[in-house]
Amino acid sequence: MDRTDGRRRVVIEGLKPLVDGGRFPIKRIIGDTVVVEADVFADGHDQIEARLLLRAESAAEWAEVPMQALGNDRWRAEFQVRELGRCRYTIEGWIDRFGTWRADLVKRLEAGQDVSVDLLIGAALIEDAAGRAPGPESERLRAWARQLREPADPAARGALALALDETLGQLALAHPDRSLATRCDVEAAVVVDRLRARYSTWYEVFPRSCAEPGRHGTFRDCEARLPYISAMGFDVLYFPPIHPIGRAFRKGRNNTVSAQVDDVGSPWAIGAEEGGHTAIHPELGSLEEFRRLVGRARDVGLEVALDIAFQCAPDHPWVRDHPEWFRRRPDGAIQYAENPPKKYQDIYPLDFETPDWPALWKALRDVMGFWIEQGVRIFRVDNPHTKPFGFWEWALTDLKARYPDVLFLSEAFTRPRVMHRLAKLGFSQSYTYFTWRNTKAELTEYFTELTTTDAQEYFRPNLWPNTPDILPEFLQTGGRPAFAIRLVLAATLGANYGIYGPAYELGENLPYQPGSEEYLDSEKYEIKQRDLAAPDSLHDLIARLNAARHDNPALQRDDTLRFHEIDNPMLLCYTKSTADLGNVIVAVVSLDPDNAQGGWVELASGELGGAADQPLEVADVVSGGRHAWQGPRTYVEVGPPYPARIYVLRRQ
Amino acid sequence: MDRTDGRRRVVIEGLKPLVDGGRFPIKRIIGDTVVVEADVFADGHDQIEARLLLRAESAAEWAEVPMQALGNDRWRAEFQVRELGRCRYTIEGWIDRFGTWRADLVKRLEAGQDVSVDLLIGAALIEDAAGRAPGPESERLRAWARQLREPADPAARGALALALDETLGQLALAHPDRSLATRCDVEAAVVVDRLRARYSTWYEVFPRSCAEPGRHGTFRDCEARLPYISAMGFDVLYFPPIHPIGRAFRKGRNNTVSAQVDDVGSPWAIGAEEGGHTAIHPELGSLEEFRRLVGRARDVGLEVALDIAFQCAPDHPWVRDHPEWFRRRPDGAIQYAENPPKKYQDIYPLDFETPDWPALWKALRDVMGFWIEQGVRIFRVDNPHTKPFGFWEWALTDLKARYPDVLFLSEAFTRPRVMHRLAKLGFSQSYTYFTWRNTKAELTEYFTELTTTDAQEYFRPNLWPNTPDILPEFLQTGGRPAFAIRLVLAATLGANYGIYGPAYELGENLPYQPGSEEYLDSEKYEIKQRDLAAPDSLHDLIARLNAARHDNPALQRDDTLRFHEIDNPMLLCYTKSTADLGNVIVAVVSLDPDNAQGGWVELASGELGGAADQPLEVADVVSGGRHAWQGPRTYVEVGPPYPARIYVLRRQ
Repeated sequence: MDRTDGRRRVVIEGLKPLVDGGRFPIKRIIGDTVVVEADVFADGHDQIEARLLLRAESAAEWAEVPMQALGNDRWRAEFQVRELGRCRYTIEGWIDRFGTWRADLVKRLEAGQDVSVDLLIGAALIEDAAGRAPGPESERLRAWARQLREPADPAARGALALALDETLGQLALAHPDRSLATRCDVEAAVVVDRLRARYSTWYEVFPRSCAEPGRHGTFRDCEARLPYISAMGFDVLYFPPIHPIGRAFRKGRNNTVSAQVDDVGSPWAIGAEEGGHTAIHPELGSLEEFRRLVGRARDVGLEVALDIAFQCAPDHPWVRDHPEWFRRRPDGAIQYAENPPKKYQDIYPLDFETPDWPALWKALRDVMGFWIEQGVRIFRVDNPHTKPFGFWEWALTDLKARYPDVLFLSEAFTRPRVMHRLAKLGFSQSYTYFTWRNTKAELTEYFTELTTTDAQEYFRPNLWPNTPDILPEFLQTGGRPAFAIRLVLAATLGANYGIYGPAYELGENLPYQPGSEEYLDSEKYEIKQRDLAAPDSLHDLIARLNAARHDNPALQRDDTLRFHEIDNPMLLCYTKSTADLGNVIVAVVSLDPDNAQGGWVELASGELGGAADQPLEVADVVSGGRHAWQGPRTYVEVGPPYPARIYVLRRQ
Repeated sequence: MDRTDGRRRVVIEGLKPLVDGGRFPIKRIIGDTVVVEADVFADGHDQIEARLLLRAESAAEWAEVPMQALGNDRWRAEFQVRELGRCRYTIEGWIDRFGTWRADLVKRLEAGQDVSVDLLIGAALIEDAAGRAPGPESERLRAWARQLREPADPAARGALALALDETLGQLALAHPDRSLATRCDVEAAVVVDRLRARYSTWYEVFPRSCAEPGRHGTFRDCEARLPYISAMGFDVLYFPPIHPIGRAFRKGRNNTVSAQVDDVGSPWAIGAEEGGHTAIHPELGSLEEFRRLVGRARDVGLEVALDIAFQCAPDHPWVRDHPEWFRRRPDGAIQYAENPPKKYQDIYPLDFETPDWPALWKALRDVMGFWIEQGVRIFRVDNPHTKPFGFWEWALTDLKARYPDVLFLSEAFTRPRVMHRLAKLGFSQSYTYFTWRNTKAELTEYFTELTTTDAQEYFRPNLWPNTPDILPEFLQTGGRPAFAIRLVLAATLGANYGIYGPAYELGENLPYQPGSEEYLDSEKYEIKQRDLAAPDSLHDLIARLNAARHDNPALQRDDTLRFHEIDNPMLLCYTKSTADLGNVIVAVVSLDPDNAQGGWVELASGELGGAADQPLEVADVVSGGRHAWQGPRTYVEVGPPYPARIYVLRRQ
């Protein structure tokens, strides 16, 4: 198409959805409908036609969907994404000569004008269309043009009815002259993921802690733990790094600088003489045992997710084999990790500014490729914001082109622009500030931003109330009710959420020291075995919440989240629903771990998909209790031990 | 710059200001400051530096302005536009190695760490900088690096003070390593116009009506009219087409199909045997007389603006010389203009889909070029929305590259997207819907949209209460007060406005028929001579308003327009100010032509640039009366015959 031909009169502007003008793809789940809009218009008064063009990234040919005019030059079409991977969409528009002629003819007829010349003009347009139509259709159009040129009685109504024949008209419209069509400047992209990208329930566990006391846990021990985890309704089982742990500068318990002989070290200090990022820590088991665990987990509905932490212990094989991938100090030593004045002598960062960067990029990509080949399809990426954006965009795009079902969770707890860039460039899910958003105002503002702005086109939040690195202050001080509050919020505000267990369900809440978010006796540096049957465990609540998530598609998406008025600053009220309002959840959550709280909710039945002013029956998805939802103003009371009402609406 | 080098770690996003992602330029007036912002950031914790890059469109080299970090990864710089024409701006960012090293060094020192290796690292960075610095600076940097490598006493405070030397540090920062810098994807453009693009006061007059009764007016007669127009304070004198008027199918008085022998025809039916778009209607005078008029007008502060109407009467020379520029009907006739069922047999539209379009485009551009060479620098373009957008973008860009002081007013009264596209692609000013916006809600909404959205980057409104085509209903029924109301609104809501005179100042308000917006006995089809000294003329009010515009820079811009509460639906209150609040205008305008209206205005002295709670003195720019502005709530009464208070604040 010669875009410089000055006779292309149609212009196309304002294509949506679009991330950064098309620089990055939007994201959807398989089966989703993508609604595309644009301003399409031309000079003058001619009618125009617009079509949405679609193709898989690798396909050469575009499929087409007619667009509908919404008025005010805005056009719309929609399509359903049916295959994993990346697909492209753009828009083409052109002057609809035949349609213009036909509409004008009607106006002339209504004004009683002589249209004999107009019939000749129409005949010529129809002949042009015939030239673009296949055999039989071409013949029908040519015959029609002949009849218009030489009507039996030009003045007769019959000739005019012939000119306006609807069936023949559709045939002419189906073969428009697109030689001067305009193609939109942007070929937008959509990345289509499986449902788990939007809806997932993560459980993080240290495999080495899965054995009975006194023994280093193995993959076999993890197999034995699967029923416990599965019973709580999780679907992603995420392991911290499972690779050999460095011995040089190994950290001791509570992050002490010098380890004791029996200290196990941090799994994030990756690499030792046994191998690096594609090896397995010998005490955990073999690669074959790992693959077996992956399969056993899948059998009970759990997908194993691995940690990708691109950094090396000093004894990582790459330090020897690829010294060019590390920065050397003037004293000859390899530069260890620092965030001045903090020093991390047990970690060597990779030098992404090495002249050998292409080989480094490939090696890192191939680490992920290796684990994909072992059956892993989900990765939690450690600190992606300390590696170049360009690397991630290249590596994730490359891997998803080959394995479109692979998902990546970005563990970037950093500044908003950086977190959003990582989400745009290819991460499927992102850690969020939820971990530190506690008040009604904070939660309302943050989740409104995530779910109602352009961010929802690319940023899929994954909510974590705790991680091995982060025991938030709210959990340190609020006891079991605080753990229940944060759990309910994570499980219902976020279609994706996760906990670091068993620390979470057992309510472990001792910080390393006052003011610190680090755990005392952190599992990062030692094996921790617990009594999973402790009576205070949140095990049952977790199971009920996850079952509710499983049963209610409204909780499997974030885009319909809406907050509602409730006249108590310690209570949060929000709804989630399916697009057709067939499933609606009303959550009233107390933010107070200490006291019962009540408040009036303003929420009309109509907003909930019921008939306006009709009482609705609601069922608490956790307690199972049923109540009538009385009119637009309803009083709700919640309090310890169970801090929320999560109602699902029952149709009458 | 090799953009694919994976070591470029900085990313640049969210550049502003930008129209449609940089597809179109922003607009500014010479002397304006452009504030540019972007998100600039990198992975990790390194410090970065960002610079704004600037160049004239034709220049090869970029000038640079350092950007300031605003926090949250947002950076800002500003520049002043000092030359007419188009200039480019973009952003470059890079890792600031030296700055990172220096900041880290401070942290290490504060933590009492040994920094001997760090001094060596710094010395190497400084040597690198020396390699990029010119002779003497290079020498100073090298000497500094040597001192850091071999300090007299490494442990002494002196060595550390040397490492943190501010002057030498600035020298190193001035020669950064930009080999891995990132350039923003977009090279944005700004079109810089002279002040008249933003602030102009138009008077439209038919030259042929400027003689005494019974005679066809000439350019000489226009010269005699100049003092009258100039005294009212106008600065643009706009003539309908001055070209030979077609004789074939000439329209008679009141747009009748067949003209009488003495009918003068419509000036928009351009072209006859005497010539086309570069010829002058013989009865008006010669080209030389036209040029003389342009000069005389300039002497009294008036710029002559011509009408560009790209359409042809059937006897236009192009019909004979360039039949390929017109569409032919199957009956052999040339296709006349139509908007079915309406037919305009006196007008042949140009066929922009002709295969000869490049020649047609050049000919049309050269029409404008011809008049530019005669001294015309402002054009009012008739119906630009019925010619291809691509043509205007090419022609206007080409002409403004050669004549950057030329301005184009788009007379597109059509759908919003079309009007905005024309503004984006190069028209300096645009007609608006003001002509039909009468109520408080309509005016508030429309002007808020024009002055507070992205539209203000490219769309400069020009407000017309009437045109030869449009006598709005409000003027037909409201008498002299209605004319005064619409005049005041146009002159104060719009930094650009115009009237079609003398019809306006004389209050001509008879429609062709009830429900029509056409004038009875329209000047488009006949010569109209009036008594300019009529006692009811708005001449004096116009002069006072235009003087106020001239004296108050707040009225010469639209971007500071703000509407304020006033508790009467028939009263509109708004302010305009200079950026420094040195000049503030408070307008209270009645929309009621029949009755006096009063209301309480809510407007604190602080908002007006005064000290909060201090009374201000205000002067009515029209009546000259002075009043005290009492506190935030002030009662204002206005009513016929003078429908507004236009206050300028007086500093105490």
